[in-house]
Amino acid sequence: MKGLDEDRAIDDLRALARFGKFETGVDRPAMSEADLEAREWLRNRMAQAGLEASIDGLGNVYGRAPKARVSILLGSHSDTVPRGGWLDGALGVIYALEVARTRLTAFPNAVVGVDAISFSDEEGTFLACAGSRSFCAALAPGDLERARNASNEALSERLAHHGLSRRGKALLDPLRHRAFIEAHIEQGPRLIEQGLEIGVVSGIVGLRRRRVRFQGQADHAGTTPMTMRRDAGFAMFSFACAAAEGLRSAGSPDSVWNFGVAEVKPGAANVVPQEAQIVVEYRDLSRDVMQRMDEALVGLVAVRDGAAGVRVSSEMIGAIEPTAMDERLIERLEAAALAEGAKSQRMQSGAGHDAMIVGRRIPAAMLFVPSIGGRSHDISEDTDEADIRRGLRVYASAVETMIEMLSPDGQGAL
Amino acid sequence: MKGLDEDRAIDDLRALARFGKFETGVDRPAMSEADLEAREWLRNRMAQAGLEASIDGLGNVYGRAPKARVSILLGSHSDTVPRGGWLDGALGVIYALEVARTRLTAFPNAVVGVDAISFSDEEGTFLACAGSRSFCAALAPGDLERARNASNEALSERLAHHGLSRRGKALLDPLRHRAFIEAHIEQGPRLIEQGLEIGVVSGIVGLRRRRVRFQGQADHAGTTPMTMRRDAGFAMFSFACAAAEGLRSAGSPDSVWNFGVAEVKPGAANVVPQEAQIVVEYRDLSRDVMQRMDEALVGLVAVRDGAAGVRVSSEMIGAIEPTAMDERLIERLEAAALAEGAKSQRMQSGAGHDAMIVGRRIPAAMLFVPSIGGRSHDISEDTDEADIRRGLRVYASAVETMIEMLSPDGQGAL
Repeated sequence: MKGLDEDRAIDDLRALARFGKFETGVDRPAMSEADLEAREWLRNRMAQAGLEASIDGLGNVYGRAPKARVSILLGSHSDTVPRGGWLDGALGVIYALEVARTRLTAFPNAVVGVDAISFSDEEGTFLACAGSRSFCAALAPGDLERARNASNEALSERLAHHGLSRRGKALLDPLRHRAFIEAHIEQGPRLIEQGLEIGVVSGIVGLRRRRVRFQGQADHAGTTPMTMRRDAGFAMFSFACAAAEGLRSAGSPDSVWNFGVAEVKPGAANVVPQEAQIVVEYRDLSRDVMQRMDEALVGLVAVRDGAAGVRVSSEMIGAIEPTAMDERLIERLEAAALAEGAKSQRMQSGAGHDAMIVGRRIPAAMLFVPSIGGRSHDISEDTDEADIRRGLRVYASAVETMIEMLSPDGQGAL
Repeated sequence: MKGLDEDRAIDDLRALARFGKFETGVDRPAMSEADLEAREWLRNRMAQAGLEASIDGLGNVYGRAPKARVSILLGSHSDTVPRGGWLDGALGVIYALEVARTRLTAFPNAVVGVDAISFSDEEGTFLACAGSRSFCAALAPGDLERARNASNEALSERLAHHGLSRRGKALLDPLRHRAFIEAHIEQGPRLIEQGLEIGVVSGIVGLRRRRVRFQGQADHAGTTPMTMRRDAGFAMFSFACAAAEGLRSAGSPDSVWNFGVAEVKPGAANVVPQEAQIVVEYRDLSRDVMQRMDEALVGLVAVRDGAAGVRVSSEMIGAIEPTAMDERLIERLEAAALAEGAKSQRMQSGAGHDAMIVGRRIPAAMLFVPSIGGRSHDISEDTDEADIRRGLRVYASAVETMIEMLSPDGQGAL
């Protein structure tokens, strides 16, 4: 893309990282002072580039190409997890800023423009993807009113504190916003381990969580013969081993699952466990595969219930549907990677992103750059500067192709 | 035994249960007000029976047949776990009181007498078997000084509070105390499940505890492919399943083991567990069998260490050697059960008892009566009254035989 300034983008990325700087990372949770200072800085940078820039009633920073009638919407989020990394979200926001200003500088009066956005609270300090949900009118009644952070502060109080309560909300306009492109660090080790430079996201996996409970009987671990025990803890260990096999069989090669929560009570060395619980989380890009995995789990619960005197039950405690990325946009990103000489691969996103929300309303796609060591959500998160620069070139080149397809009158098909 | 008064014993058992009564059970932890009130009551009952009775510097209540030169020592403990049952310990103390007073009443001047004792803090509110350890001079230097309860009160402070600090300590005298017999509820389901009336304890199992630690890496549970994970939690589940098989193979038919403590960190559904730890406890009557079980565990740790990128290590965090009961005394108890028409069986004790401490110094034996539902350490603990009475008859009859074998001059062999 002509006029693209990689150095300027790198400078902006470093400037953004100063807000909430914490050791080698950034501590900038949604609605913190640092988050709002960063958003104000970003709004200014957008305005300096000639975009109509504002912070909306939820903290979304939206920069609109003033003369354009249709646009490619670019962006990500500028909030972080507590003590997080400097690139998660920020990379996609600065890529968006750089491409939007490059386009606006080169073609200030074009019908087809580029809009940039930094969504609020993607990380879920109060409510995951609160900003993109608001932008897409995808909030359920009461969601915002109920949202509280870990310190039990209400989102509404924090919005009032920052003077945002009475502002209007930026909204997706499907007639204007013809596509959404989000760049992001991979947050996993696939690209870096395989020596790849660009990941083109095929879709964002869905997720289900099931809590499995085991109810046995507490007994003296010395005086109760093994055959007379109702050991809820061992039933859980054994269930987890069998569940891993069942999920592997039912899943796809890309399915993932995790037993991240496991508890045993009363938790004394000399007492046979009375109760245990485990949370099983599993993800896949295909709704059908997730359904098969769920059936495998539920079937195993039924088979195990009552064995060795232990009751086993389960309940679904979370579900997010998978979101496919747009095939045409995927192809544009792949073509751009090829044109820039970047080694790319299609891959699923195992983590949620704003593109998951926006992609349910308009065509969306995502580009990943490698994460060193696969690290993210940690101050050690980093990406080689050459990869950051290459990612920007591929991203800009893809957006340029999309603009061309919509041009000159905004009526072209993507 | 002539003069044995079952009704009087039952009345005393009920009287003792009123100290610290809690719902259907008893809350009488060592050094509580209720514990000392119960001990003072017991000392009085012993004195009324003609025994030289005193509470020693650790709270042991010791009643000595005044004219006897040698004796059979009988007893157990009168402290309980918090919110425990009315029989655990108390049964053996009241059996001892009843048999000691019956003997003293019938033969006040006999050379061979019966002494009774209620040991202090068997349950380990401050230090497990503190009273019997003190009595047997089996305390290590500093044990008493370091002993604290869950509220961080020092045992020494509680002893001072009850005015016991400056008292002398009752001590085992192997020239006088020729045998120790302890009656106790089973605290397990074997007798009740098999319709048996008396358990004759062959030995008190030894115990070993090993903590096994798993060290992996915390990763995003969505973005990290299954093959790239270092999942400490799943390594633990899988280890526990294999360890159960290994312990079963290495152990005896009576071996027991337990995984009572299991922890996974950081403990979030969407984070691959970085750390996990499990405590494996295993018991057997044979030192050799315990050694084999330990070798099986240590071998498994070595095999698993490093698999799937998870470090596995273990350390021994507790060990108690098994204590065999005296074969001659066992035979006396079995003969007495037969004579009383009681269905008995030899069995190991899976729990620790004061007889474990005393049995290392002088010949010792234990008799069990059935526990309803195998319950103990709980207010639901109970034993059918017919079983309590039968147990007393068998116990008294066995002690009578032992007295006869030592009589008339105390020089006979047991």
